[in-house]
Amino acid sequence: MQRLPARFLITLMLLFASALAAAQTATDGLPSWNNGAAKAAIVAFVQRVTTPGTPDFVPAPERIATFDNDGTLWSEQPLYFQGMFMLDRVRALAPEHPEWRTQPGPFRAALNGDVKGVMASGMPGIEAIIAATHAGMSADDFEATVHAWVATARHPTKNVPYTQLVFQPMLELMNYLRANDFKTYIVSGGGADFMRAFALDVYGIPPEQVIGSTLDAKYELRSGVPTIVKTPKIVLIDDEAGKPVGIYRHIGRRPIFAAGNSDGDKQMLEYTTVPRSAQDTRPRLGMLVRHTDGEREWAYDRKSHIGTLNQALDDAKGRGWLVVDMKNDWLSVFPPAK
Amino acid sequence: MQRLPARFLITLMLLFASALAAAQTATDGLPSWNNGAAKAAIVAFVQRVTTPGTPDFVPAPERIATFDNDGTLWSEQPLYFQGMFMLDRVRALAPEHPEWRTQPGPFRAALNGDVKGVMASGMPGIEAIIAATHAGMSADDFEATVHAWVATARHPTKNVPYTQLVFQPMLELMNYLRANDFKTYIVSGGGADFMRAFALDVYGIPPEQVIGSTLDAKYELRSGVPTIVKTPKIVLIDDEAGKPVGIYRHIGRRPIFAAGNSDGDKQMLEYTTVPRSAQDTRPRLGMLVRHTDGEREWAYDRKSHIGTLNQALDDAKGRGWLVVDMKNDWLSVFPPAK
Repeated sequence: MQRLPARFLITLMLLFASALAAAQTATDGLPSWNNGAAKAAIVAFVQRVTTPGTPDFVPAPERIATFDNDGTLWSEQPLYFQGMFMLDRVRALAPEHPEWRTQPGPFRAALNGDVKGVMASGMPGIEAIIAATHAGMSADDFEATVHAWVATARHPTKNVPYTQLVFQPMLELMNYLRANDFKTYIVSGGGADFMRAFALDVYGIPPEQVIGSTLDAKYELRSGVPTIVKTPKIVLIDDEAGKPVGIYRHIGRRPIFAAGNSDGDKQMLEYTTVPRSAQDTRPRLGMLVRHTDGEREWAYDRKSHIGTLNQALDDAKGRGWLVVDMKNDWLSVFPPAK
Repeated sequence: MQRLPARFLITLMLLFASALAAAQTATDGLPSWNNGAAKAAIVAFVQRVTTPGTPDFVPAPERIATFDNDGTLWSEQPLYFQGMFMLDRVRALAPEHPEWRTQPGPFRAALNGDVKGVMASGMPGIEAIIAATHAGMSADDFEATVHAWVATARHPTKNVPYTQLVFQPMLELMNYLRANDFKTYIVSGGGADFMRAFALDVYGIPPEQVIGSTLDAKYELRSGVPTIVKTPKIVLIDDEAGKPVGIYRHIGRRPIFAAGNSDGDKQMLEYTTVPRSAQDTRPRLGMLVRHTDGEREWAYDRKSHIGTLNQALDDAKGRGWLVVDMKNDWLSVFPPAK
C-alpha cells in the first residue's frame, strides 16, 4: 500500500479539527440552556431562516430580533430596576428639595421607601418623580448619573450589582443570533436613555438598537457647547401597543424574532409572529420567558404586581409562542460572579 | 545569475496587481468628484479616522455619518419632492372629497397647483393636507402608495423620475464611507416613512437608518392582522434643532460626519462638529452642499424659498465646515440615465 504523504494527513487532521470546532460552536453556543424542547426550537428556527437556497431563508438584513428588557434580559423584582434607580435619585436629590420630606405626596413616600405610597399618588405623582429624576438635565449628565449608579448600586435582597442579575442564557441567545447575522434590539418599557447607558457593556447592544420609553428633549448651545437637554414630556410609552409603534418608528420593518415575559410584550409578539396574509409564510418565532424559579430567581406570573404574565400566556398556545420555563430550561440563570 | 522560480514571479505579479487594485479603489471611489480641495478634504478625513494606532482613529461602531435628504442627496426644486407627492395625492383623493373643489382653502389651492395658496393657509392648512394624505391609512398602504408614486411620477421640468435626480457624487460618498465602515443615516425634515419607501433601493440605506419627521401611529389587530395605522399627530419635526433631537432619539450617539445644504442643517452640523470640551479632539467633518449649478441643477442659496442657505453659510468658515461647490466640485451631478 502506498504511504500517504505527511502533508495530506496533516491537512485531513486540520479539516477534521475545524469541522469538530464548527459542530461544537453550533451546539455549544447555548451552554446554559438545557438540551430540551426550548433550545431545540430556537436552534431549529435559526437553522431554518439561515439555510440558503430554501424557501424559509431570510436575507441577513431582515433578521431583526427584538428583546424586552425587564424580566426578559434581567430580573425585575421586587421593583423594576429603573424604579430602584428613581428611588435612589430622589434620595440623592432630597437635600436640594427640603419640601419633599415635609409635604405629603409621592416624594415623601419615595424617601420613605414606600413604593405603595408612590403608586397611590397615581400617574401625576409618578410623572412628577420622573420629571424630577429623568428630566431637566443634559443627556450627558443623565448618562453619567446612570453609569455611576450601575457601578455602585446593589440589589436589596440579592446584594449584587444589578448588572449581575442579567440572564446568562439570554446573553448566549443574543450572541447566538448575532453570530447568525441577526440584528438584536432591545424594545422595552424602560427608558431608552437609561438602558443605553449600559446596554453596550452588558448586552453588546449599541445605543442605536435600544428602543424604550422616551421623554422629549431639546437642543441648545450651552456656553457654545451643543447640548441635548431632557424635558419631561413623554413621546413614547414603549409598552403594550406602544411596542409595535416603537418598532415601526425606529426600525421600520417587522422583526422575525421577539422575546418578552409579560402582558406588556403581547402586542410585540403578535406584531412579530402573526402572518399578514395567507401568502405570508415566513418563519417567525415569539418567545415568553416564564419566571418559574423561586429558588434561583423569582416565581410569579398571572397575579404579580410586576411583570404580569396572564393574557400573553393564554395566547401563547394558539399563537405558537415558545414558553421558556426558567426552572427547567435554564441550567444557570445568572452569569458567574465577577 | 540564478533564475527565479516561476512561482515566485507569479506571486510577485499577483501582489502587484492587488496593490494596484487597492490604490485604484482608494482614488476611484469618488469618480464624480473633481480632484480638488473638497475631495481631498473628504479623503484626508476618512484616512485620519480609519488609520489604526493613531490618536485620531475612531472605532468602526462610532463612525456615524448623517445626511440630510432634500437638497443634499437629491434635488428639491421647485418644491420638496414630498410636496409634489402631497399635491399628487390630493389630486388622486379629490373624487372622494367633492368639497375640496368647491370650498376655498388649502385643498382647492392644491388642486389648482397653487403652492402659494397652500402656503397662505398657514400651518393649519398644511397640517390638514398632511393629515389627509399621510395619515388615516395603514403603514403598509402608505408605503405601497409611495412605491407606486416613485415608480411613475416625473419631475415637472426635468421630466425624469424623481429618483433620477439623486446626486451621483453623494451616492459615491456614501458608498465610500460605508466601505470604510461608516454607518450612514438619513436625517431629514422629510417624512421618515416616505423616505423609507425608497431609501434602500436608491441610497442603500435600510429603514432603521432613516430618521425623519414623524407622525404618530397606533397599533391594532385588523381582522386579526397586526396593523400599524398612521395618525396625524406630529411626534418629531426633524429640522433645525429637531435634527440633533432626532439623532439623540434614534442613534443615541453623536455623528462624526454630517452633510446638509441649508439652514435646516445648521444645528446638526454644530452638534456633529463642535467639540464638547477642550479635551474633545476627535476629528469631525461637517459638509454643506452649495447649489451653484443653474445649468445642470439649480442655483440658489440665501434668498431661496426652498433650502435657504444663509446662516449656515455664514457659520461655515468659523466652524471649519467644508462647502462643496456643486458646479466646480462635481464632474457629474446625476447618475447616468437608466
